[in-house]
Amino acid sequence: MSESQELTYVGTRPVRPDGVEKVTGRANYGADKAMAGMIHGAVVRSPHAHAVVNSINADKALALDGVFAVVTAADFPGREGISVGRKRFFENIIASAKVLYQGQPVAAIAAKTQKLAERAAELVEVDYTELPAVLDMQAAMQPDAPVLHDDMFTQGLEETPDTPSNVVKKAVITKGDAAAAFEQADVVVERTFVTPMVHQGYIEPHACVGSMTSDGRAVLWCSTQGHFGVRDMTALALGMDTGDIRVEPAEIGGGFGGKTVVYLEPLALKLSQKAGRPVKMVMRRDDVFRATGPASGTINRVKIGCRNDGTIVAMSAHLLYEAGAFPGSPLEAGAMCIFAPYDVADVYIEGYEVVVNKPRVAAYRAPGAPQSMFAGECVLDELAQKLNMDPIDLRLANAAQAGTHAAYGPRFKEIGLRECLLAAKAHPNYQKALAENQGRGVAVGFWFNAGNNSSAEVHVAESGMINVVEGNPDIGGSRASMALMAAETLQVPYDRIRVRVGDTDSTGFSNTTGGSRTTFATGMAVIQACEDVVEQLKARAAITWGVEADQVEWVDGEARPLPGVNEEIEPLKLARIARSFPRTGGPISARASLNAQGPGPSFSVNLCDVEVDPETGRTTVLSFTAIQDAGRAVHPDYVEGQMQGGAAQGIGWALNEEYIYDAQGSQENPGFLDYRIPVASDLPMIDTQIVEIANTTHPFGVRGVGETPIIAPLPAVGNAVSRALGIRMTELPLSPPKVLAAIDNG
Amino acid sequence: MSESQELTYVGTRPVRPDGVEKVTGRANYGADKAMAGMIHGAVVRSPHAHAVVNSINADKALALDGVFAVVTAADFPGREGISVGRKRFFENIIASAKVLYQGQPVAAIAAKTQKLAERAAELVEVDYTELPAVLDMQAAMQPDAPVLHDDMFTQGLEETPDTPSNVVKKAVITKGDAAAAFEQADVVVERTFVTPMVHQGYIEPHACVGSMTSDGRAVLWCSTQGHFGVRDMTALALGMDTGDIRVEPAEIGGGFGGKTVVYLEPLALKLSQKAGRPVKMVMRRDDVFRATGPASGTINRVKIGCRNDGTIVAMSAHLLYEAGAFPGSPLEAGAMCIFAPYDVADVYIEGYEVVVNKPRVAAYRAPGAPQSMFAGECVLDELAQKLNMDPIDLRLANAAQAGTHAAYGPRFKEIGLRECLLAAKAHPNYQKALAENQGRGVAVGFWFNAGNNSSAEVHVAESGMINVVEGNPDIGGSRASMALMAAETLQVPYDRIRVRVGDTDSTGFSNTTGGSRTTFATGMAVIQACEDVVEQLKARAAITWGVEADQVEWVDGEARPLPGVNEEIEPLKLARIARSFPRTGGPISARASLNAQGPGPSFSVNLCDVEVDPETGRTTVLSFTAIQDAGRAVHPDYVEGQMQGGAAQGIGWALNEEYIYDAQGSQENPGFLDYRIPVASDLPMIDTQIVEIANTTHPFGVRGVGETPIIAPLPAVGNAVSRALGIRMTELPLSPPKVLAAIDNG
Repeated sequence: MSESQELTYVGTRPVRPDGVEKVTGRANYGADKAMAGMIHGAVVRSPHAHAVVNSINADKALALDGVFAVVTAADFPGREGISVGRKRFFENIIASAKVLYQGQPVAAIAAKTQKLAERAAELVEVDYTELPAVLDMQAAMQPDAPVLHDDMFTQGLEETPDTPSNVVKKAVITKGDAAAAFEQADVVVERTFVTPMVHQGYIEPHACVGSMTSDGRAVLWCSTQGHFGVRDMTALALGMDTGDIRVEPAEIGGGFGGKTVVYLEPLALKLSQKAGRPVKMVMRRDDVFRATGPASGTINRVKIGCRNDGTIVAMSAHLLYEAGAFPGSPLEAGAMCIFAPYDVADVYIEGYEVVVNKPRVAAYRAPGAPQSMFAGECVLDELAQKLNMDPIDLRLANAAQAGTHAAYGPRFKEIGLRECLLAAKAHPNYQKALAENQGRGVAVGFWFNAGNNSSAEVHVAESGMINVVEGNPDIGGSRASMALMAAETLQVPYDRIRVRVGDTDSTGFSNTTGGSRTTFATGMAVIQACEDVVEQLKARAAITWGVEADQVEWVDGEARPLPGVNEEIEPLKLARIARSFPRTGGPISARASLNAQGPGPSFSVNLCDVEVDPETGRTTVLSFTAIQDAGRAVHPDYVEGQMQGGAAQGIGWALNEEYIYDAQGSQENPGFLDYRIPVASDLPMIDTQIVEIANTTHPFGVRGVGETPIIAPLPAVGNAVSRALGIRMTELPLSPPKVLAAIDNG
Repeated sequence: MSESQELTYVGTRPVRPDGVEKVTGRANYGADKAMAGMIHGAVVRSPHAHAVVNSINADKALALDGVFAVVTAADFPGREGISVGRKRFFENIIASAKVLYQGQPVAAIAAKTQKLAERAAELVEVDYTELPAVLDMQAAMQPDAPVLHDDMFTQGLEETPDTPSNVVKKAVITKGDAAAAFEQADVVVERTFVTPMVHQGYIEPHACVGSMTSDGRAVLWCSTQGHFGVRDMTALALGMDTGDIRVEPAEIGGGFGGKTVVYLEPLALKLSQKAGRPVKMVMRRDDVFRATGPASGTINRVKIGCRNDGTIVAMSAHLLYEAGAFPGSPLEAGAMCIFAPYDVADVYIEGYEVVVNKPRVAAYRAPGAPQSMFAGECVLDELAQKLNMDPIDLRLANAAQAGTHAAYGPRFKEIGLRECLLAAKAHPNYQKALAENQGRGVAVGFWFNAGNNSSAEVHVAESGMINVVEGNPDIGGSRASMALMAAETLQVPYDRIRVRVGDTDSTGFSNTTGGSRTTFATGMAVIQACEDVVEQLKARAAITWGVEADQVEWVDGEARPLPGVNEEIEPLKLARIARSFPRTGGPISARASLNAQGPGPSFSVNLCDVEVDPETGRTTVLSFTAIQDAGRAVHPDYVEGQMQGGAAQGIGWALNEEYIYDAQGSQENPGFLDYRIPVASDLPMIDTQIVEIANTTHPFGVRGVGETPIIAPLPAVGNAVSRALGIRMTELPLSPPKVLAAIDNG
């Protein structure tokens, strides 16, 4: 498509198809499922951050009337002679010999009621030998640190060491010769930034119902971003064939990357198998905090050098990413994104992933990028201050564009960074005067976006209604965006399209919804399937008319004979063709599967005005402006919603959120009263501006939009607070105690 | 295929895929569904067989705490200015001005519990004016009979009459000139036979859960033979678009034709809409008897003439079929089947459908054929007696074969009647000596079988497991038979195939499971989709090898280069190709939809030995032998199960089952204690013999097998009892009182 392609449905803002169900409480989330004969499960979790498990005795628990089954690691596939990766995956689901974080499962138990299961879980006796815990990355990297895994040897070094270490790996990105290029710089800024472990803060806790029969076939209902992923991971955990598990996705009350992993699902199925009944398991909020995957805490040192005119000559970074108890941090993505917005010849990035006695991290919206770009964009802001240059102009002077060779690999096609920067500069919010104790921050966000495998089916009902089936849970409006793309392709009204998320048995494979891939990749599958439907509709009309299929065209939702074929033929509307399906060859349906290539990178620019109260250290966000290149905004309301939601989460990360541990590794704030995510009254209206630079590899120009919005808020807030205070702030969250300390030390 | 085609999987007897779930009680039937916030519905039913509804007052019911909503006909689309067919469909779901049978719904009510809903239903005050009821067809045909529908004028007469009548229509089948041909007969037998209204006797009552949200979108879970049909009928009843209802089929505890209709579903959805909650409705057994669709009672007069050598020269029939309160009897199918087994030049069949104040009939296995063929096959038996001829030889002398032009229209292709007759004659059970009071009956059964629209999807999981999705509930083993046909087409083992019945949104349209169409038609769709998968697998292998797709063959579940292409290439197993799907183009899936042409007619021959106790009139079935042409028996266990189940039901119909009404039209035996279906101790082992004459229009030769088995048992039992008594029995059921009366009158 060209940027000026006229579209009828894509780009409009119809009512969301799942809205009524959700606002009236009729939508079914993970915990809403009930099955005949269902019982309830509870998890026995480690109270210790690091300990040897000597024995587990569930006799007292099993003696309770109404307790059906208990499972421990011994009920799952053995952990000898398998790859370390698989072993660690197993251990995070249920620990065998050793626990590595507070809340790690050691057993699970099923009983007639939830209360009884929880009481029974308390009666399970686990004998532990406590070990010293290490919670800080720098401490964990010391030679005398407690070692979490005696079979972990740092990867990515020139030589693999022969002593185990808490350093998982080293990763490097190099372009040109940064060390030499720094010599050319007139101004250099180098600083170290710290970001804490934070949680995605989804409102709905993890929940599932699992049922396995004695022939080893299973069905799972759960709240997830990817039910095919749940199927595959659960099958792996249980030593089953993926085809023997059917996973049906519930509605999802937030995921943001955190619902791409399995925790309860293998436990529920194993309990179900032993108990001979379906088992429901629902996490409490403290379980969610202690034992699901938050975002990595990081310590990142960034150095950027530029000429007096603002031309950047060299960029370097040294990244430390917390993995939690098992490898899995988004170090690489953080390294890929940090300098991607800039066209700089000489770049060096070196990063390390480190295990500590905290929960294993998981994805959180643009995983890895907010932490690294917080560091990078704050250093750029300081450079702009040193050069006495407008921070947008500094970025414009170095902005990547079509043809730029990004340090992480690709050569960009059409991208929208310049357009976003120009829109920011022209935005009224950028012109407003600032008062005392106020500051304005600018920052850029970048996410490469993902493609991957997707499938879709399209069925034409006898009434002419279109049913689209796809395999990605609707976490951010995909039912609406798929319907709009189907409407556009078929040229039928949006309200004649119904989109359903199929379970793992009844639709083709689709990768998990993540990396902002779904509207792009699954959308391509929907479009292809609809194109096939159009061909079939033309062929059916041709049969009806007694002409050849290639003598028919599809225009405005109807089949028409090509000019000159037969002037007396009346066009046939889709519904008319649909109704006569038995006479023209049977039901009309089509499908498509693909591994989508060519996702379009997404850039954003955020502006943030804050006022800091020097008495209390409290920061008030006065205005926040999110500008982003969506490629094509399929449903602009949802795109704006993603931009606003990402901004809200990023502001929370910047100002308030953090995991707080005591010295023994017990989390002190595992609840929303003490772990403070922003509420509506904490935030101004988030202003949005969508920029549309088409992604040329997608039929309608779509780029992903869900990840990028969370990145720039961290540095935008950080830069705003730093400028308001006149002090460069480097450690998140910028909570009142930290701000007051900075003022005191200022 | 040829009859001798060697098949690897089709024709084997693997374990049924749903067996474990069912025998361990884990399978979910209609009443097993629960939803968050669900409430319960009850139906207010007419106590009268014929009455005017003056008013309905639900105030007292609605005043109960916990009662949420009541619906009456006024809540449904209006009944003025619509077609009579649609109006009658609406009235059978919920009556507006008049009730026509005992148990007809007049209102429905939803409350917090089932008990409360039933108590509330009793508090709904309905003011009726009773009208005289007519329960007997011959009485209903009299000019002074109470008229059920003042807008019903007999169809099919030369002139449509101008006075309303209880006669729905006249139907005629003519071939040659029967009246003239009877002149050529040496022997003529003419008799009238009576069969009562009987119920399918499925164990699971009708049950559903319906949920509609305020935007008019709905989901239904129910026990049905066809969820697409439920979707379409429910949408019609509610004035909705089919695309706005998603129907998910539960397991089905028997249907036999009776679960092809909607009763509770529109009521549940309307209650759900008004109450704002999901609503569950479950029938009691007496509701099932009084207000669902039994099989037509009939009065059929048959006349057959033949020469002394046994050559039939003419056949004629006069059929009366009870519709119940609304048109819908299987008169035409009864007329089509009655003489279809015989190659006779001159045939005349005339039939009438009559409404009476009983529930509207529904399909029951080979709907219409058991009643008419009971009459036809009993007359043939009497002819054989008169000719002193073996009853099998009489049938062999006149048996239809390939090329025979059946009176109802078609010219038969390859059929298996002769082979079944020869198998019967050679069967050891046909040679056994008979003692005093014992008799042996022979009869033929025939069903034309159906094709219609079917769809299937096939997905290849990463592990190489195959998921087949189809849209027909598994009422008789279709999961196993689809898996076998998929295994055969793909050449992968049966235990690597999983078959799922998809809901109406997630698979292509398929007509209801009925008429023995599913293994034939849906099987063809599965085979076509699997053939597409094979093409894709070959193409993926070709990509992997860097050769052309047409240089690859598929043998024994693996891709191989054609001889001479490249001797060094190793074959690729399906699982290997499946695993590498992201590198070869994305997920591997395929689908097919079709309107299946060319179903193969199915013939059976049954042998029955009975002993009649002249003191009590009780008949004991000594042995029963069912022989049937299955075309190809995909899973012979299931085919034998169909033959045995049909025999058991047919024996019950012949010996014991009947609706008994008092003079006011109240059913006196609405429960399994008084309505006596055969239990295991009533029956001998049913011996089976499958004959396989391939249906040439199906890739594996499949004919339908589910309908035919119920037909011949009625005349086989009737003929056996008549021969044991030496008295021609003409009225079913042959229960002890009737037998004793015949002996007394004999």
